[in-house]
Amino acid sequence: MVQTEDKETTQKQAALFDLVRYLKEQKILVEEALDRSLPIERPAKIYESMRYSLLAGGKRLRPILCLATCELMGGSVAMAMPTACALEMIHTMSLIHDDLPAMDNDDYRRGKLTNHKVYGDDIAILAGDGLLAYSFEHVALETKDVPADRILKVIARLGNTVGAAGLVGGQVLDLESEGKTDITVETLSFIHTHKTGALLETSVVSGAILAGASDTEINQLSRYAQNIGLAFQIVDDILDITATDEQLGKTAGKDLAAQKATYPSIWGLEKSQATAQELVDEAIAQLDDYGLAAEPLKAIARFIVTRNH
Amino acid sequence: MVQTEDKETTQKQAALFDLVRYLKEQKILVEEALDRSLPIERPAKIYESMRYSLLAGGKRLRPILCLATCELMGGSVAMAMPTACALEMIHTMSLIHDDLPAMDNDDYRRGKLTNHKVYGDDIAILAGDGLLAYSFEHVALETKDVPADRILKVIARLGNTVGAAGLVGGQVLDLESEGKTDITVETLSFIHTHKTGALLETSVVSGAILAGASDTEINQLSRYAQNIGLAFQIVDDILDITATDEQLGKTAGKDLAAQKATYPSIWGLEKSQATAQELVDEAIAQLDDYGLAAEPLKAIARFIVTRNH
Repeated sequence: MVQTEDKETTQKQAALFDLVRYLKEQKILVEEALDRSLPIERPAKIYESMRYSLLAGGKRLRPILCLATCELMGGSVAMAMPTACALEMIHTMSLIHDDLPAMDNDDYRRGKLTNHKVYGDDIAILAGDGLLAYSFEHVALETKDVPADRILKVIARLGNTVGAAGLVGGQVLDLESEGKTDITVETLSFIHTHKTGALLETSVVSGAILAGASDTEINQLSRYAQNIGLAFQIVDDILDITATDEQLGKTAGKDLAAQKATYPSIWGLEKSQATAQELVDEAIAQLDDYGLAAEPLKAIARFIVTRNH
Repeated sequence: MVQTEDKETTQKQAALFDLVRYLKEQKILVEEALDRSLPIERPAKIYESMRYSLLAGGKRLRPILCLATCELMGGSVAMAMPTACALEMIHTMSLIHDDLPAMDNDDYRRGKLTNHKVYGDDIAILAGDGLLAYSFEHVALETKDVPADRILKVIARLGNTVGAAGLVGGQVLDLESEGKTDITVETLSFIHTHKTGALLETSVVSGAILAGASDTEINQLSRYAQNIGLAFQIVDDILDITATDEQLGKTAGKDLAAQKATYPSIWGLEKSQATAQELVDEAIAQLDDYGLAAEPLKAIARFIVTRNH
């Protein structure tokens, strides 16, 4: 009986956890840190271009995941903030380069003109390079009160996640698959694991590494992150079909127009939605041991399947 | 008398130092390490593209400077090799991106087609990103027998050297200056300090940091590196006028055709050559305390003003 009552109390308290407020507060913290991280120096144009995309809004999901995991594992926000900023720099860099005419050729991102539409292709390429380089410098220089070997582990992991074994490799397979009608679920999964999943997983795992989590804990958190990463991508594909341009802040229906293989195009909308929900449920189950302290991570998982942008 | 004799002996032994052989041997060591550092994985195309440019030859001056300095400061080649490889990955990445049609639009590099001419603009952008990300991962994962805090210092310095405060910033000012006829020596110096000097200086200084050199030693080596960096660029500008396409492995006379401000265009050829020589003499003077052990670094400095490609 006592156990059942405890469980009920926990569920009620969990229901009281205000995710919207939490995300808003954490987002402000992250955006203040991002703003401070990159003052304008000479030549001003490149710093302005880097800041234009870095401070263009967005959910800041990756830094928030990193901070939340570091706190859950007994670390502090301060310990994880430089890495949280680096994750957003890396994410921003990948968006700037993916949007280039030589790649996906997108004019809008987060409701604003893409970097190259404002600054030109040359500066956009260099702004991406600058953000990528700076992300590593920032983690190496600004991470305080964390043993150096943990910081090195985080840097190695960040590098792996952006490079040919991660984002870059996923984007290459994505470009190769465009226009093809015979893409398998296996290929699609490779693309998304590398393009989206890897950075989300590293966001979670790097927070844990900085806090000094054990290998067992890191494995559990990895499974959580892999599940929400895949769910996130499935929902992205669904939203491309069901949401409006205004909701997305970018052109909707692009995948369909480009005849791009997506989860809904292979599985249909209904199975895609059900699978995303299952993945999120499994992600949340990984965090059962942590009780209420894991509520931010659990709520973020739930948010991923219910978001409309 | 004894001192004079010693000095004469030293000069004779220095004259016997076989730089050509040294550079050849070190180059082989570096190229073997580069080859091993990047095996082909899935998706193969991106790894092939990265390897195409990374293993396209070149003098390997940056890695050789790093290895030589680490040895001079009491470290080993093994301690510095991952950083040496990272320096070449970064250098290669900057060449791939600079050669893109959106930037300098070059078709040849080191006598071979540029990366984007072989693999397309999209893959070339991603190959650069992949090499840049991998350079940090490689240093963080593969550097052995060096305290973690020294490795972090090297990573911070590498990031600073590639980013907006280094290569990227220099390239931006270079692009902005193109076609302008009123470029000052100050602007030209900013461009080269950032585009060429910074990475050469970091090559030298990172070798010293890994070996545990003192701040005084690092300052001395920095001055050596700044001098050879500027001399290197002046000689590059001179060679663009005086050398043939075959000697350079790229189109000669490009600066002139693009009406680019260069040291010879501001100072004339004679003053440019004299200044390069003075800079090299001053660089060598920084190493007086180290005697014969510094002969590789001294010989490299001399080589910079006498090279014809």
